[in-house]
Amino acid sequence: MRRVAISSWATSKFVKDSKLSLFELACEPCVEILKDGNVSRKDIDAVMFSSCTTEQYSSTIVSEMLGMRPKVSHRIDNLCNSGTNAVASAFSLIASGLCDSALVVGAEKTDSSGNKLLWDITRGSFMFPVHWAAIFAKAHMRKYGTTEEQMAMVSVKNHRNASKNPKALFDKPVSLKEVMDSKKIADPVKLLDCSAPCDGASAVLLVSEEKAKKLTDSPVWIKGIGQQTNSASFANATADLTTIESAKLAARDAFKMAQVMPSQVDVAELHDAFTILEILAYEDLGFAKKGEGGKFVGQKEIAINPRGGIIGCGHPVGTTGVAQVAEIASQLAGAAEKRQVKNCKTGLVHNLAAAGSSATVIIMGA
Amino acid sequence: MRRVAISSWATSKFVKDSKLSLFELACEPCVEILKDGNVSRKDIDAVMFSSCTTEQYSSTIVSEMLGMRPKVSHRIDNLCNSGTNAVASAFSLIASGLCDSALVVGAEKTDSSGNKLLWDITRGSFMFPVHWAAIFAKAHMRKYGTTEEQMAMVSVKNHRNASKNPKALFDKPVSLKEVMDSKKIADPVKLLDCSAPCDGASAVLLVSEEKAKKLTDSPVWIKGIGQQTNSASFANATADLTTIESAKLAARDAFKMAQVMPSQVDVAELHDAFTILEILAYEDLGFAKKGEGGKFVGQKEIAINPRGGIIGCGHPVGTTGVAQVAEIASQLAGAAEKRQVKNCKTGLVHNLAAAGSSATVIIMGA
Repeated sequence: MRRVAISSWATSKFVKDSKLSLFELACEPCVEILKDGNVSRKDIDAVMFSSCTTEQYSSTIVSEMLGMRPKVSHRIDNLCNSGTNAVASAFSLIASGLCDSALVVGAEKTDSSGNKLLWDITRGSFMFPVHWAAIFAKAHMRKYGTTEEQMAMVSVKNHRNASKNPKALFDKPVSLKEVMDSKKIADPVKLLDCSAPCDGASAVLLVSEEKAKKLTDSPVWIKGIGQQTNSASFANATADLTTIESAKLAARDAFKMAQVMPSQVDVAELHDAFTILEILAYEDLGFAKKGEGGKFVGQKEIAINPRGGIIGCGHPVGTTGVAQVAEIASQLAGAAEKRQVKNCKTGLVHNLAAAGSSATVIIMGA
Repeated sequence: MRRVAISSWATSKFVKDSKLSLFELACEPCVEILKDGNVSRKDIDAVMFSSCTTEQYSSTIVSEMLGMRPKVSHRIDNLCNSGTNAVASAFSLIASGLCDSALVVGAEKTDSSGNKLLWDITRGSFMFPVHWAAIFAKAHMRKYGTTEEQMAMVSVKNHRNASKNPKALFDKPVSLKEVMDSKKIADPVKLLDCSAPCDGASAVLLVSEEKAKKLTDSPVWIKGIGQQTNSASFANATADLTTIESAKLAARDAFKMAQVMPSQVDVAELHDAFTILEILAYEDLGFAKKGEGGKFVGQKEIAINPRGGIIGCGHPVGTTGVAQVAEIASQLAGAAEKRQVKNCKTGLVHNLAAAGSSATVIIMGA
């Protein structure tokens, strides 16, 4: 298997109501990547577009708008897990030798159809994701004594991190009291335990080892990828409501491929569409022991969600996985400015879709 | 790069108005593949769904309906070129070593939104594909003296082939007179020069060399893949209206990778959504000299579109590329029953999207 590096990345400012079309939005971070002058349009062998849009031929439209004529171009969609699927797919195009470079672009508008999964009738009238988040939260509280304050602290931390990230939707810290006092949406989940849909785009350029050495002195390597799809419906996603089984399996494979232990991870972007999910991720990834995720909130060993996570940055569905990978690449390259994590060498991205019915874990290293 | 084989394939009967939902349709050929007993659900590392549906999380829905829990599952869409993109993507997952097997499933309903490309305003009020087919046909007639009869003969041949294919939408041969007398849609393109949208599904199972040897005595190998995306719009697809430039470039790369010459190809499925496209393909792939595609119709050296092509089988957009690959695999394995091409060792699939603005060429060998 050929080694694959990330040589460039860019993320647009996430906002609630951009004046740009989906395709204009998608072009923004790509144009930023092209601006640095090292990469020319002709160097791009593949354009993979990650989005939940209903528009047809969307990846090829983005390619044309960017003035590119890549070999490969197609859209990949898998709800919130789209962006990380696109990165994994780009990885395999290069690792196999079919391509030497692949530009992965995620873009989504606030009103994306990716925000609800209509097919899943097992949810009855509880269609909105907040309902399964409430079920997970209640189960973890009952079984392990996790508290609403611990969940609220995830929101406080991620909003604080986001306030140092100029691209984040939310730019102000929130207090524990503000989270606890925010409107209850589905008990015990409150408004500030939830992420918000928004407009945003992100892009990362994956390249072969040979190309990486030409483009940059400090490439960031993709060292391990694990993916697992358990179901599409909530009813069949997991047998134990205190564990995201797909994430555990994806993490096992990613750590094995990267030959890395959870304790070696310095920085991670975890899927925190709801605060309880970050707590479950601590346990599913092996950062905390089972049941101790609540107490793990606020630890200092691993920098978690330095960009602000999904709660702080907003959640443009098809973009999120790409933006997570862009953030970890930026941290490992020492280019994360005000939010730079010191001395980080190993990074991790954890992404989920639809009640954790599928998951991707990517391990990266400087 | 690891070698990749196709070990199983199945295609549903293409019809105009199936009672099945898109997802039920998608499951049909997969269940047929699983029936043979050699392959178990647990053996499937990836499910790639090719479709132009607007439904979200569609690949994962298909996985769940099949009772599978694959590692990788996502949808790939790129209009008519979706199925071949999905096959190329599955190839790279296995060739890279990330997966050992990948089930590629194409499914589409007649009323798919993939039948028109709304974004392409360069077509003005000429939104339907038949308009660009007419422009290509006129250009080739003007420059090379290609005749309406030569185009009609493509339809006659492909309908005749389809009459031997129990899965084809059209089951009766048509005469040259019937094609020539059929309704003019956009001069010089007549009704019987056109393919028809329909309901249909197809699936192919790609596996690693090691797995192939366990599953079958006669695996069919994928030897070369070439892809090229020139544009999304008709206006920027090709500088010369008598050539599909993307197909020429894709063919160059596929032949190089496979180390095969056009003259070595025994059997080919070519994208004939309109008869003129098959004539252009003869030239773009190097089977006929430039300008001599019209005279090449009816030659006996290479068996072209033995399943009936798109004109004979119908055109379920996201399914077509998968069904083409399934047909060539079946021919090379000597399993094509009444339509078996004798002594075929090297096969080719040629697929296009949206006025040839993108193309994929896949070369396979026994």
